[in-house]
Amino acid sequence: MSPINFEVFPESYRHWRVEYEGDIARVIMDVDEDGGLMEGYQLKLNSYDLGVDIELADVVQRMRFEHPEVKVVIMQSGKDRVFCAGANIRMLGGATHAHKVNFCKFTNETRNTFEAAEEDSGQKWIAAVKGSCAGGGYELALACNHIILTNDSTSSVALPEVPLLAVLPGTGGLTRVTDKRKVRRDLADVFCAMEEGVRGQRAVDWQLVDEIVPNSKFDDVVTARAAEFAAASLKANGLTGIKLTPLPRKIAEDGSISYDLVEVAIERDKGLATITLNGPDTAPPASTDALQAEGADNYLLKLARELDDAILHLRTNEREVGVLVFRSQGDPAAVVAHEAMLLDNADFWLANEILQYWKRVLKRVDMTARSLVAVVEHGSCFAGPLAELLWSCDRSYMMQDEFEGDNRPLATVTLTAGNFGRYLMGNGLTRLQTRFLGDPEAVDRLEAQKGEALDADAADDVGLVTFIYDDIDWEDELRIFLEERASFSPDAMTGMEANLRFAGPETMETRIFGRLTAWQNWIFQRPNAVGEEGALQRYGTGIRGKYNMERV
Amino acid sequence: MSPINFEVFPESYRHWRVEYEGDIARVIMDVDEDGGLMEGYQLKLNSYDLGVDIELADVVQRMRFEHPEVKVVIMQSGKDRVFCAGANIRMLGGATHAHKVNFCKFTNETRNTFEAAEEDSGQKWIAAVKGSCAGGGYELALACNHIILTNDSTSSVALPEVPLLAVLPGTGGLTRVTDKRKVRRDLADVFCAMEEGVRGQRAVDWQLVDEIVPNSKFDDVVTARAAEFAAASLKANGLTGIKLTPLPRKIAEDGSISYDLVEVAIERDKGLATITLNGPDTAPPASTDALQAEGADNYLLKLARELDDAILHLRTNEREVGVLVFRSQGDPAAVVAHEAMLLDNADFWLANEILQYWKRVLKRVDMTARSLVAVVEHGSCFAGPLAELLWSCDRSYMMQDEFEGDNRPLATVTLTAGNFGRYLMGNGLTRLQTRFLGDPEAVDRLEAQKGEALDADAADDVGLVTFIYDDIDWEDELRIFLEERASFSPDAMTGMEANLRFAGPETMETRIFGRLTAWQNWIFQRPNAVGEEGALQRYGTGIRGKYNMERV
Repeated sequence: MSPINFEVFPESYRHWRVEYEGDIARVIMDVDEDGGLMEGYQLKLNSYDLGVDIELADVVQRMRFEHPEVKVVIMQSGKDRVFCAGANIRMLGGATHAHKVNFCKFTNETRNTFEAAEEDSGQKWIAAVKGSCAGGGYELALACNHIILTNDSTSSVALPEVPLLAVLPGTGGLTRVTDKRKVRRDLADVFCAMEEGVRGQRAVDWQLVDEIVPNSKFDDVVTARAAEFAAASLKANGLTGIKLTPLPRKIAEDGSISYDLVEVAIERDKGLATITLNGPDTAPPASTDALQAEGADNYLLKLARELDDAILHLRTNEREVGVLVFRSQGDPAAVVAHEAMLLDNADFWLANEILQYWKRVLKRVDMTARSLVAVVEHGSCFAGPLAELLWSCDRSYMMQDEFEGDNRPLATVTLTAGNFGRYLMGNGLTRLQTRFLGDPEAVDRLEAQKGEALDADAADDVGLVTFIYDDIDWEDELRIFLEERASFSPDAMTGMEANLRFAGPETMETRIFGRLTAWQNWIFQRPNAVGEEGALQRYGTGIRGKYNMERV
Repeated sequence: MSPINFEVFPESYRHWRVEYEGDIARVIMDVDEDGGLMEGYQLKLNSYDLGVDIELADVVQRMRFEHPEVKVVIMQSGKDRVFCAGANIRMLGGATHAHKVNFCKFTNETRNTFEAAEEDSGQKWIAAVKGSCAGGGYELALACNHIILTNDSTSSVALPEVPLLAVLPGTGGLTRVTDKRKVRRDLADVFCAMEEGVRGQRAVDWQLVDEIVPNSKFDDVVTARAAEFAAASLKANGLTGIKLTPLPRKIAEDGSISYDLVEVAIERDKGLATITLNGPDTAPPASTDALQAEGADNYLLKLARELDDAILHLRTNEREVGVLVFRSQGDPAAVVAHEAMLLDNADFWLANEILQYWKRVLKRVDMTARSLVAVVEHGSCFAGPLAELLWSCDRSYMMQDEFEGDNRPLATVTLTAGNFGRYLMGNGLTRLQTRFLGDPEAVDRLEAQKGEALDADAADDVGLVTFIYDDIDWEDELRIFLEERASFSPDAMTGMEANLRFAGPETMETRIFGRLTAWQNWIFQRPNAVGEEGALQRYGTGIRGKYNMERV
């Protein structure tokens, strides 16, 4: 099978159209039935598969970098009588367990970016729902910041997964119903157990939508609401975007990948991918004008884009690679300088967007179901946003003292202001706060050490790395660990990491990836859903699923 | 298979001894190898199965009612060189998926009661760990309030499940390591990925135990620590317990059960159990002396014990019963009076224990993986603690206006002070706070209506029930709903209910039952753990599990 590619371009979208009108954009879902990513299904009724969602993720991402002038995004359907029928069931029925799980994770990450667009960039998403809006379709609307439903006899919102398909509304549906819309728990039960959904005034009364509008006035009200929200937006006027240029990606025959700043070496026999992040070889831009002129060539933006693409590629296309090793090479002071330029100008839209994007990429790393290891070698540049990777990882190894024949600068870790609040995890804490949950004062002490290049002994003393080894032990310790880790059951590792990585408070986001996703993954293994007589397999045959009625 | 019985008596414990010395009790784990609940395994090295845990739950429960004089409980091993080896692996390897899931749920509930004993009743649990303490053994220690480890070359704490068995430490282990002990996340990763565990000073440094003590001083220090904690306890001195007398349970041939106050009618062909709670026919005790004299005959204590036993029986022994219907019959004013006596005397130990027990029983209902429905009929007594069931349930139906030929008093719901803080859910909120998460002021408005018997229209107006129906619609609506509900996939219902029931904040408790349990249940379905070549099946054969190395 040829690898799934996460890089797409507006010129070649098959499923979405985007129309720009000043500070308002319309994102129109108009899925090409014959444009499925795989064989065996048609994308009828605006149903989607991973390919449709890859384009949507691109829409959201480009909206923020290429169209900062946009303050309000209207999501609507390009088809009559249907907003969106949700994930394609035949696709789900035919997909492997691993594909289902990965598909749901990516769609969840994309839905989260709708909400982040308002919070981080002042781009508010409106769902303008005409026609039926079911399952994943309603989950798209739920991820928007405001839902307008047309009030007619055929337009409704619904989460029919449980009664119809014996699976959960797993793209955030159940969690957003309870935690975002705060639907009363028994009404949520009624809503999620009915195939036909809810329409009209009841949809408002149950807090499932924000407003209903008669069909005849629908377009006017949607346009008026968008104008209102745009007028109320605190976002600066008249911003000009930058172009997200194509990624310089080359994939070698052995699967290894190289970009300009990121290299991924793959050793499939060892279940191992080594991701090297290279430091900058240019000075940071001298002004916001210079930053704007750099555009996608800005070091930290380029690095984030390449890393993001590499992670998505590895997740989807290299599933037997169970361990990701992060290393870096470069000048830590130069990384600090590049980040400082953005932090100092965080009120400039592009500096803000790059920092926010790093937050998202680091969350994507946190959510990657592979064992993650950071290796801090001599010559490395783990500083600021790159240092965050040390605490995204399950553990880290750092070189101590000089190594024979190695004349690179000694390994260091450098904390910056960015590490103390810029890159919040899904749980709402910094990675350092999460790491030192039992000793909050440790974070305060660390803050006083910002800007110092901490060597192995110093980093170990303050608890920034897991193990430090000198020249004598380094190679053996690392080899033994990597061999052992790669030998463990991948499922047990996934479950363990999903529990250990997110200590502390839970948020809607962590609940979606923790509780909701874990239950959905369980159901995706159960014969009642995926067995030969299960509901997903029988969907469309006119025969209901046959269930083993035992509760477990 | 004969039903598993959750009622046991100290006289016939096979696996535990309890020694009382004034305000200190010693709970000694000394598992009878040949005392397994089922065939096919021996309970070596203090490993446990459900039968061992049923006795332990009884120990904790009786400690609180029969021995309120106890301020400190020391949990220790009755065997040399081993504290506890955890859940029996051969038992797990041979158990059905449903048994594994139910076993873990019950053991988790029991571990939670250790922590609750300190919080609710001032009974502090110390784990005095000598010898190896692995997996479920360390999870027993983690659930105690203080862990003392002997400092010798063979005593250690360990969570070897992931490397050894390809499953999670699912009895709270991962969650308590991160959230209770607040072990640094990378150290937690190291700890949970090693078979051999951690001992000595490192166990203290990593916050895995509270103190280490040389072998020669171990017994003295444990005794001294217990005396210290007892002296510091705020619990009243010299309390005298009551006897938890045998439950008056009769099981009929069709599976229906009757106690004195609780009846369970089972219709297996409909997948339905109807649980009727009967109101009191006595006045509440006039004084705390009278309450003490009533002992286990106190109405609310008796009702809680019967309901608790019924729920455990249904969960374990009636697995195809997917829907539990709660109904009540009796005088609501009498229920209010009984609860008021306890609330007014909540500083009296037994009143407090009964109220705290209701909290636990209601949590047990919340955590029951069956669809839960409350039916508020004429003649019912849903008031105070019984009214909590309306909001534990997934939804409720209430009779409206007079029904032909039915001369019972019209259906009402009565709120009491108890509903506003006495029976907190696992998420730390009241059921009313959770229900009205989107409208916190609704809870304040309801508080002003305490003591009023609200009829169907009033209860509907303020959102206390889901549906109200009059004589014309009642029977059909209820029948259609119950038939439909019983036809849905049990797995999808379990996943849906686990997500909808716990809106709002998460706590260590909700994370154990949500995130940790859901991942464990997923792993319990994966061939890498439970397949023929999986680690659980191969344990003890000398051959490691053979894994499909794909990450999903």
